[in-house]
Amino acid sequence: MKIIDGGITSPKGYTAAGIHAGIKKVKKDLALIYSEKPASIAGAFTQNVVRAAPVIWDEKIVKGYKKAHAILINSGNANACTGITGEEDCEQMAALTATALGGQITAEQVCVCSTGVIGVPLPMETIKKGIADIIPELKGDTAHADDAAMAILTTDTFKKEIAIEIEVAGKPVTIAGIAKGSGMIHPDMATMLSFIVTDASLSSELLQKMVGNSIADSYNMISVDGDTSTNDTVLVMANGASETEEITEDSSSHEIFKEAFDAVHTYLAKAIVRDGEGAGKFIEANIKGTASKEDARIIAKSIITSNLVKTAFFGEDANWGRILCAAGYSGVSFDPANVSLAISSDAGSITLLTEGAPVSFDEKYALSILQEKEITISMELGEGVSQATAWGCDLSYEYVKINGAYRT
Amino acid sequence: MKIIDGGITSPKGYTAAGIHAGIKKVKKDLALIYSEKPASIAGAFTQNVVRAAPVIWDEKIVKGYKKAHAILINSGNANACTGITGEEDCEQMAALTATALGGQITAEQVCVCSTGVIGVPLPMETIKKGIADIIPELKGDTAHADDAAMAILTTDTFKKEIAIEIEVAGKPVTIAGIAKGSGMIHPDMATMLSFIVTDASLSSELLQKMVGNSIADSYNMISVDGDTSTNDTVLVMANGASETEEITEDSSSHEIFKEAFDAVHTYLAKAIVRDGEGAGKFIEANIKGTASKEDARIIAKSIITSNLVKTAFFGEDANWGRILCAAGYSGVSFDPANVSLAISSDAGSITLLTEGAPVSFDEKYALSILQEKEITISMELGEGVSQATAWGCDLSYEYVKINGAYRT
Repeated sequence: MKIIDGGITSPKGYTAAGIHAGIKKVKKDLALIYSEKPASIAGAFTQNVVRAAPVIWDEKIVKGYKKAHAILINSGNANACTGITGEEDCEQMAALTATALGGQITAEQVCVCSTGVIGVPLPMETIKKGIADIIPELKGDTAHADDAAMAILTTDTFKKEIAIEIEVAGKPVTIAGIAKGSGMIHPDMATMLSFIVTDASLSSELLQKMVGNSIADSYNMISVDGDTSTNDTVLVMANGASETEEITEDSSSHEIFKEAFDAVHTYLAKAIVRDGEGAGKFIEANIKGTASKEDARIIAKSIITSNLVKTAFFGEDANWGRILCAAGYSGVSFDPANVSLAISSDAGSITLLTEGAPVSFDEKYALSILQEKEITISMELGEGVSQATAWGCDLSYEYVKINGAYRT
Repeated sequence: MKIIDGGITSPKGYTAAGIHAGIKKVKKDLALIYSEKPASIAGAFTQNVVRAAPVIWDEKIVKGYKKAHAILINSGNANACTGITGEEDCEQMAALTATALGGQITAEQVCVCSTGVIGVPLPMETIKKGIADIIPELKGDTAHADDAAMAILTTDTFKKEIAIEIEVAGKPVTIAGIAKGSGMIHPDMATMLSFIVTDASLSSELLQKMVGNSIADSYNMISVDGDTSTNDTVLVMANGASETEEITEDSSSHEIFKEAFDAVHTYLAKAIVRDGEGAGKFIEANIKGTASKEDARIIAKSIITSNLVKTAFFGEDANWGRILCAAGYSGVSFDPANVSLAISSDAGSITLLTEGAPVSFDEKYALSILQEKEITISMELGEGVSQATAWGCDLSYEYVKINGAYRT
């Protein structure tokens, strides 16, 4: 398994494009990912009962059709809370893209994703023109992969993409992904769009199973602000263009593929948090010694979601009581008398609590650890042998600023 | 039922004091509330599994002894996550106070509350001297009631107190309360201390039942930051000094007392939110038309807890999609197509969503509504006839500032 240069077009048989259609004022706002061969498709969607029109559309494709050719994504407008009009607009986007791509492609082979402001109808004339404009732009090179990665962003400050190469029975197989954050990010499918494509050959059923496993330890373990979006979507395509043997659960290549597949999801999930709205620090919470993995997940997520923990890290304040407090109200039962807690970064490591007893520490040394950009919280609960990791960021003035005037 | 001038000493038979003992640098930090007659005592405590030493102590008194004479409160240090030392310190505070009060009072008749930083041992020498100093200060006048109300505050910017007078069989009975917020405030006993005293005569059992009912619609319906504290405590004393008949569940006066009792709790809960850390706006969420009251409570709390909703109000932005989104991820099932939504304030009222369809609105008029200090969100779900109200505040730069450097 090796990370290679490149983006969403690195696996064989995929082209991509990203353009400025005019939904946003200046930045790119329309992306298309296309596989000439029909690809197995799988996905995971927001658990919010308020679901944007494209979420409903894509789930229908993933569950009902299992093969797709393309994913069309617009940023700048979420097409959420837009009623029947929104559903019709979404279907029209798929139909127009299918027609423009030509050949035998149907609307039901085109997934659609939207991200941006909620409750405003899509500017369909702009989007129609954008679809006509983007088709001729489709290319398989890195520049066009980057354009697509840029066009799906909203308040993100950098593009999130990765490509990993593995060998399946001696032949190269590539998995690549792009994603966007960066607000409305919270466990239960953190608010995000993530698109992963591979030239491996897999059934949509196996792909779906692998997506479910993968998101539990990646996107579902990050939080920027505790808000679960109406549009969260992960879509995965596998087109078999590598012409390698089909990967099944019994294949010798299953493990290596799974490892790379999980690595792509985890990389993108962490990239989303690194670019959390207003985030200045990246916080990893490693929870060990719980009675079950689910307990560890719940505690880890509670800690990285706590506004008081997040503001303490923003202030570079070793206020470890807030970390213990957030574990305490997570809903998981444990004995505080057995808890040990440490924080670490490139500047060093410091123990704050040993089996329930506070450890006096040097404030200057703690400050030097907290002044780093990446900080790890390590908590041991002494209740069992399970563990989990979650990723979050600090809560800054900038977060308030960005979200105090998002629409304007 | 009428609100009267006065504070925690308004009911007969109570004295109070608040002094600067030296736990904080300058402000008052030690308060005492004293009833000469033994009073029925009831309480409610944090649901956090990490519980501060005084929470454990007070719960023992409430459950085991049912009568108390005094409540000693220090601010500036929460005596939480302080291990066995913390428990010993707490017990010593009760014992010293009991001895200093003289007579037949035992340590188990003195409740103790602490609020402030977590994980730092109490400065016991300072507190011992403070206890000796505060006893001679006890008085029944308004000035001393105000001193006590001030001494329990931490980052609060104003004291929270109320006194209500009712008639029980033709004779006056008074209920009074003081409380503190103002961060680590979230449903499941919002982070706070609240002390209510009355000169009515009630058994501790009935008082306990009434506390349980009352907190469900008051403190448990507020949120400042989503963090549930280690120290949340409500304590209620009823000393019977009004010399009115005992109130039982069958009394004709039960309803009027309950109404006044609930009003005291609700007033204090709302005062805590009004003074939420960095809060510039007071947000009320009225949720109607749910299948159960619990559904309405969950949705109301989800909305007022959402960082994205809170920052939108800070930015005076009518970003109603975030409100619907927060309802959608609350865990309650509903059909978004039936939801109607409006916001209102002293400047007017505006409908944003009617049965799932966005209503176009005048942005200038919406801004004029949102520029007010108190804003009401009204949501109708069309799933039933239940309703609930929750109270929250906006999320401001000031919140981040206060919590980025709490310990320093």
